[in-house]
Amino acid sequence: VEAIQPVALKHAYRLMNTGATVLVSAAHAGRSNVMAAAWNMPLDFLPCKVSVVLDKATYTRELIVASGEFLLSVPCQAQAALTAAVGTQSGRDMAEGKHAQLAVQTFALPGVGISAVEGAIGWLACRRIAEPHLENTYDIFIGEVWAAWSDTAVFKDGKYLPLAQTPPARRTLHHLGSGRFVVPGDEVQG
Amino acid sequence: VEAIQPVALKHAYRLMNTGATVLVSAAHAGRSNVMAAAWNMPLDFLPCKVSVVLDKATYTRELIVASGEFLLSVPCQAQAALTAAVGTQSGRDMAEGKHAQLAVQTFALPGVGISAVEGAIGWLACRRIAEPHLENTYDIFIGEVWAAWSDTAVFKDGKYLPLAQTPPARRTLHHLGSGRFVVPGDEVQG
Repeated sequence: VEAIQPVALKHAYRLMNTGATVLVSAAHAGRSNVMAAAWNMPLDFLPCKVSVVLDKATYTRELIVASGEFLLSVPCQAQAALTAAVGTQSGRDMAEGKHAQLAVQTFALPGVGISAVEGAIGWLACRRIAEPHLENTYDIFIGEVWAAWSDTAVFKDGKYLPLAQTPPARRTLHHLGSGRFVVPGDEVQG
Repeated sequence: VEAIQPVALKHAYRLMNTGATVLVSAAHAGRSNVMAAAWNMPLDFLPCKVSVVLDKATYTRELIVASGEFLLSVPCQAQAALTAAVGTQSGRDMAEGKHAQLAVQTFALPGVGISAVEGAIGWLACRRIAEPHLENTYDIFIGEVWAAWSDTAVFKDGKYLPLAQTPPARRTLHHLGSGRFVVPGDEVQG
């Protein structure tokens, strides 16, 4: 298994800085769900804030509004099929829930009441900052990150390791559309 | 020179869907500026809306608030140094302006009163949707895209061409931090 370690909050935004697709998980009153969100961005360094666009039809959004919490997982190339699947199929009508139906493996992170997606490379535990106008008009949800973790084989000491040291299967996913992703192949210094 | 063609508005969001860094340009009353913004995301398909985080200290933000308009350019690997430079040096105190000082080449797009960055692979002309609370509290600026264009050697008929057909120098830039970028190297289907 990977060596999962906490990420200092001042470095948590870096997990999302490259614009990779994230998975959004939420839970409330015994129900849970997970979806993909290509539309996301960091908002601030410290306190770390992030944003994600969640369509009104999504079950995950309903759970976030009810619970006031969400968890972001940063998936990797090995999870491309999983990411496309959770991003296109709604858990609302899955009797056993989306995790069971789509065989999404999860694990518990310390202090987090939402199951984390196993095999991802980073995780950000967020408290929703309620902004009804923003949510209703633009579908933007804002979270303050109160804890973060990373797979230290990919992201360590507050930053992504050089790409040449990253196993190809653990590179981030950048969504082109229709389940088609590009993954990093080179690193350049500007 | 590249063959620059209009992008249908319903496909404009795709230019930004992979989370690449963009350049933000603005102009007002004879002044103009350009900066880099890794923190950006699409918000809606049609009408196409996009968002970008602009720090209160930026000169570009001041010009956007004054003019109500901005132009996003999607830079590519050949522009990594340019992107890092415009992203770290403020144009506020450059007597000749940032374009002249940093030798940023520009061209005119039809109907757009803001100079476009030459050599980019996509451009989105935006009208600011004024959201003072959002701007003041989170530095989020929202734009409605009213026209878009692409370099058809990279993005054509509403989508990015297969990565294998894209010249390496024209791949998108995904910011890790400190002017360090990853660029797409492989494409996977989920």
